[in-house]
Amino acid sequence: MKVKDLGEFGLIEELAKMIGKEYIGDDAAVVRGKDGRILLYSSDMLVEGVHFLPEWHPPFKLGRKAMCSNVSDIAAMGGVAEYALVSIAVPENTELGWVKDLYRGIADTGVPIIGGDTVRGKEVVISISIIGSTDEEHLTTRSGAKVGDHVLVSGPLGASRAGLEVLKRGMEGYAEAVEKHLDPGCRSDIGHEVGAIANSMIDISDGLASEIRHIAEMSGVGAELYAEEIPIHPSAVKVSEALGMDALRIALESGEEYELLFTVPEERLEEARKYGTVIGRIVDGGVYLVRDGKREDIGKGWVQF
Amino acid sequence: MKVKDLGEFGLIEELAKMIGKEYIGDDAAVVRGKDGRILLYSSDMLVEGVHFLPEWHPPFKLGRKAMCSNVSDIAAMGGVAEYALVSIAVPENTELGWVKDLYRGIADTGVPIIGGDTVRGKEVVISISIIGSTDEEHLTTRSGAKVGDHVLVSGPLGASRAGLEVLKRGMEGYAEAVEKHLDPGCRSDIGHEVGAIANSMIDISDGLASEIRHIAEMSGVGAELYAEEIPIHPSAVKVSEALGMDALRIALESGEEYELLFTVPEERLEEARKYGTVIGRIVDGGVYLVRDGKREDIGKGWVQF
Repeated sequence: MKVKDLGEFGLIEELAKMIGKEYIGDDAAVVRGKDGRILLYSSDMLVEGVHFLPEWHPPFKLGRKAMCSNVSDIAAMGGVAEYALVSIAVPENTELGWVKDLYRGIADTGVPIIGGDTVRGKEVVISISIIGSTDEEHLTTRSGAKVGDHVLVSGPLGASRAGLEVLKRGMEGYAEAVEKHLDPGCRSDIGHEVGAIANSMIDISDGLASEIRHIAEMSGVGAELYAEEIPIHPSAVKVSEALGMDALRIALESGEEYELLFTVPEERLEEARKYGTVIGRIVDGGVYLVRDGKREDIGKGWVQF
Repeated sequence: MKVKDLGEFGLIEELAKMIGKEYIGDDAAVVRGKDGRILLYSSDMLVEGVHFLPEWHPPFKLGRKAMCSNVSDIAAMGGVAEYALVSIAVPENTELGWVKDLYRGIADTGVPIIGGDTVRGKEVVISISIIGSTDEEHLTTRSGAKVGDHVLVSGPLGASRAGLEVLKRGMEGYAEAVEKHLDPGCRSDIGHEVGAIANSMIDISDGLASEIRHIAEMSGVGAELYAEEIPIHPSAVKVSEALGMDALRIALESGEEYELLFTVPEERLEEARKYGTVIGRIVDGGVYLVRDGKREDIGKGWVQF
């Protein structure tokens, strides 16, 4: 059997069987120290042509995005990013200026780079490992959601996917959406604080619909999302109008947003409103989108429109 | 300017300017915790066609070697490897069995894999980050060698390079040398203990001649290596005889050996002999090979024969 017959998630599942189960399923691995300090570890690998296209992506922004996706994993655990290890493979005919700009973008996020490797390759590969820290009070996983929790998201969604559609079609304008695709940033400004009040949290790297399913599955609960409450980025609305696409669908499916999706109990709701918008509720079972008073099952895959 | 005009070390030097200087120059980055515990971090990236050839390298052994090169970096700091993050890129038409065997080899070293990433790529890329720990007593860097220290190496050298020459030429036999090239192992069995008695230490990943220069340069001292004392692996002697090559040169230049090179003060010499063979002495300045009573300068580059 070839890798392509399994798909990327299938392969990850196969390999995950060989890893300690206690480390799987969250944005970062949790390692508890003897002194009560908790260390968080995560790695991402980005490959040219699969995860980014150099002709679209200026190297400085690519570097920032690569690091942000890692910093976001730490923020989503209620942690603070402390250090990073950065390894890159680059073809020999790459311009030195391109590599230096990539590296400047990686360093621009302010996380100290304490090591890594630089090697020759046929295509650009960026592999970042991030080390973060937190404590029991702030540590938040995907698996802590409780029935009755409110579901919040830290910002408007859809711009990253909208920007990708603009780039794919070579459309003029829509600079804001394109910018959000190329340099989305992440919510390291609030992740640690949210960790103190949230029962569960995840970052939106694969899309809201997918992330709420992860929380529900890992927590053994269900969820309802209120279609009317999901904040859609204005640039995503503009692009969806131009393309005749459904803006809500873009917001539900848009990956690489790096906003935080989290759930809080009733008594922490007022505090939580500082960090996001209420878009749903944790329920007994099933994952649903509630629109025009009707429940649509989004528990099995992409939303049906 | 293109990356190829700089070379790999040149590029690393350029990028290192953008990294915190305190983290550069050792096998692993050192992070001191508030509780006196020291964490060690290192990353290696291996690219198909640059660092290994799948047609020579069975995946299980490749996985072991990839992990060993990281575990060796921790051992060379007097540390103990604790966790690893493993990211791999694989082409879609790769056999699942090949990827699983690679992963089994990575896991076989016994270091728990706590995370990583699995992605699609045009060529196989293996990126491992390793987390180790030690304490002030055992921590050993490249920069602690003192004039008068004895220089020791933990095992016989040359087999890895000899095995590579055998593979390159498609020669029959010489299985022991080939095996050492494909699956060299590393000295995690002694690294932590040696850390308690050594003033300086490094692992032999680029070759003995190169590593002794690193120690001398980082410590601000010189070194003499005694040609007659350098232990040469029997399989390297056999291969060098067959090829009409100088066995000592192979031992001096052979990389990916993952033996430990360390220096100890006079008063720790007897203990140190448990862990290796004395091959030289730290001196005031210059890096020399002493052969037949004559000093040859090996401070500037490869040994002249």
